[in-house]
Amino acid sequence: MRKPLILVTNDDGITSKGIKELVQICQKLGEVVVVAPDSPQSGMGHAITIGESLRLDLVKDMFGDTLAYTCSGTPADCVKLAKHLVLKDRKPDLVVSGINHGSNTSISVLYSGTMSAAIEAAIEDIPAIGFSLCDYTAQADFSHILDVVEHVISQALKNGIPKATALNVNFPNKKNGALKGIKICRQARAKWSEDFDERKDPHGRSYFWMTGEFINEDKGEDTDEYQITQGYATIVPCAFDLTAHYGIAQLNNDWQLDLPSKTH
Amino acid sequence: MRKPLILVTNDDGITSKGIKELVQICQKLGEVVVVAPDSPQSGMGHAITIGESLRLDLVKDMFGDTLAYTCSGTPADCVKLAKHLVLKDRKPDLVVSGINHGSNTSISVLYSGTMSAAIEAAIEDIPAIGFSLCDYTAQADFSHILDVVEHVISQALKNGIPKATALNVNFPNKKNGALKGIKICRQARAKWSEDFDERKDPHGRSYFWMTGEFINEDKGEDTDEYQITQGYATIVPCAFDLTAHYGIAQLNNDWQLDLPSKTH
Repeated sequence: MRKPLILVTNDDGITSKGIKELVQICQKLGEVVVVAPDSPQSGMGHAITIGESLRLDLVKDMFGDTLAYTCSGTPADCVKLAKHLVLKDRKPDLVVSGINHGSNTSISVLYSGTMSAAIEAAIEDIPAIGFSLCDYTAQADFSHILDVVEHVISQALKNGIPKATALNVNFPNKKNGALKGIKICRQARAKWSEDFDERKDPHGRSYFWMTGEFINEDKGEDTDEYQITQGYATIVPCAFDLTAHYGIAQLNNDWQLDLPSKTH
Repeated sequence: MRKPLILVTNDDGITSKGIKELVQICQKLGEVVVVAPDSPQSGMGHAITIGESLRLDLVKDMFGDTLAYTCSGTPADCVKLAKHLVLKDRKPDLVVSGINHGSNTSISVLYSGTMSAAIEAAIEDIPAIGFSLCDYTAQADFSHILDVVEHVISQALKNGIPKATALNVNFPNKKNGALKGIKICRQARAKWSEDFDERKDPHGRSYFWMTGEFINEDKGEDTDEYQITQGYATIVPCAFDLTAHYGIAQLNNDWQLDLPSKTH
């Protein structure tokens, strides 16, 4: 039987610990190709590179004999470049992104480069999963989740992923104790409450560092944010069709949709 | 009666023609504050600036006596900086973004800096609209849509916007003739099929320019992409909760969700 073809990418950059762990898992399950950013791309959301050109460079001996490239662009760019320049006519059976150093639960999915790579693949009708661990440190300890990441990837290869979605998979920090299980969840209604820390440059001009506090306004027990605090790995199937269908009826009912008379 | 407070931003940068047109419309309807990128930010998706600091600079006499700032970050950063450093405790009645030079229908909403600013506001529970015209040129002709943009903003101020959404409003190019009307739509299932144009730098190393062709795979007449080609302005209410609820049941049914035995 043909081994599945698995494309691996991330947003922390090709030298991060999380992608190394992910590649080692995937090497057990299929043929692996890596195309990852040459520098950290956290917070890049679904950015793509339009006004600049892109570099794509072969990397030798980083992941054994696995074919690996760095890309100068965003995570979404990596998936596009991999598809067209590296894999050419070969469609991957799965795209996996991560393992991210830091949580991507709830609203963070929108800002996440990890998930944008997965969603980019989903748009191309390729099953895709983004993995994140609630540990922002460079030396994050992934040891408690490696078997579960392998299990989730195996399930995706065997049973598929819901149509027109990418899976957002998050794991609790190791210091929170043994993993209790896996829960399929909805995205919690939460937000980041930012603050800006003002500094002065040597010329006296102000500049600002963004700082943020995560605020969960959603107490639902079916949410990713709730379950991860209870010690579970969480999986949210994420759509790239943003249409809020309830809003269509409301606008048709409440709004005056005739063109203003001046334009007639 | 208090005039509504309207925050204006965009992704083409503060010197673009589209934001100037939008500010002039808003000045008729309320008190306007502008916080816009100091350089073009097209394709930035929902990127935010984490690893670098941000500048925020007062701009004099660009929009009459309207308070205006440039920000060195992304459109989503502009909304965050506006909220915390410019408006402080004043919550805007509406955030408008654009008018974008170029279409943001269907899947382009994910890559769109214009819409990321609107969605960032929606996350903060502020009614928000992104406006885009299907004309990518710097000298785009907005004359056929100005009254309709004003009408849409007035409707939003009067009748509100569906909860937890931002509106994605797109207009046909002027050369396609008179606007036929306004349609509330769903996001078309479409994608960009990229290609990469390879060049060599003076040192013989390759670099790549992304080029793309838009492919609409969705023939539904209730989609934004269909209606805009028929000559209508389109409005799609866009959610920031990406949960694909149909996927939750499917994963619970089809997947083996017990932890792999090795972890017990």
